[in-house]
Amino acid sequence: MRTAVLAATIDILDEDGLAALSIEQVAHRSGVAKTTIYRHWPGKPDLVVDAIGSMHDPMPTPNTGDLHADLRECFHGVRDTELQSRFGRIIPDLLAASQRDPEYAQLHKRLTAERKQPLRTVLELAQLRGQLRADVDLDDAADLLIGPLLARTLLSRTPSDEKFLELIIATVVRGLSPEG
Amino acid sequence: MRTAVLAATIDILDEDGLAALSIEQVAHRSGVAKTTIYRHWPGKPDLVVDAIGSMHDPMPTPNTGDLHADLRECFHGVRDTELQSRFGRIIPDLLAASQRDPEYAQLHKRLTAERKQPLRTVLELAQLRGQLRADVDLDDAADLLIGPLLARTLLSRTPSDEKFLELIIATVVRGLSPEG
Repeated sequence: MRTAVLAATIDILDEDGLAALSIEQVAHRSGVAKTTIYRHWPGKPDLVVDAIGSMHDPMPTPNTGDLHADLRECFHGVRDTELQSRFGRIIPDLLAASQRDPEYAQLHKRLTAERKQPLRTVLELAQLRGQLRADVDLDDAADLLIGPLLARTLLSRTPSDEKFLELIIATVVRGLSPEG
Repeated sequence: MRTAVLAATIDILDEDGLAALSIEQVAHRSGVAKTTIYRHWPGKPDLVVDAIGSMHDPMPTPNTGDLHADLRECFHGVRDTELQSRFGRIIPDLLAASQRDPEYAQLHKRLTAERKQPLRTVLELAQLRGQLRADVDLDDAADLLIGPLLARTLLSRTPSDEKFLELIIATVVRGLSPEG
């Protein structure tokens, strides 16, 4: 049931957009009764965030002892896949909705924090090991890594290939390494 | 006339969003006749892109001979200002519209290319001077710089302060400097 509802929600988000999505439509497309859907998701925002959240497997925090290798694992899930292309098409709607609707803003904030967490931990461990400048704020460092992916998805609308991911990692690791 | 219409358009985009904006509303708010507006802007997308475009002064390409200083000038316009906050609130709507409407996608593409151009030139000159690795793609390098600003605006919704701008520049300049 859950899988069918979330898959239908993602399909509609991708094809018609957030504004067009209704629980009615999700019920129709998934073949699950509206009442059943409402029992599990009190409203449209709950369903939407659950569906978008389900597009990424929860990621274990890598801890190889090497910053470069850890970051490579963090980025592993962001390769060019069909799922990523769909995510790239859906996320601007969520960002736009967050501007005006506090419910989506809240969900968006949570989603961002969740997705950022493993990266923050990887950076913190690297800082403790002395592989990252001690004076760098972890959120700043995380945004240096996430930002270029976002620019690629949102501005250039081209997938981030392996070569670009490697360039981001190499640049930030070298750029933020302790002076030597 | 032009200034009043563009200002009204930006106000409406900021307060009510792109979907809610109509030429009718812009006419009402600016006090300029609908027929006059249509004579200058054939349709809503033309008006919207002109208004969003007008939020940034066209930027001369800096050429101080030093990559760090040039980038600092490129970023000068992106400081935390009221105009920037409004831009940050408006841009997600344009991104979302670009997903489904080829007209906005086209406008968005042009706007991105225009805003990227001075940065690309600065990077290209640095590459010719040997201050930037010769094998780095200029679009990749530009996204390394623009991306973190985007992450700050869209994901964290916090303004990029001077300290963060300096960190981006220092990290990328060091990270992409020729080996040795």
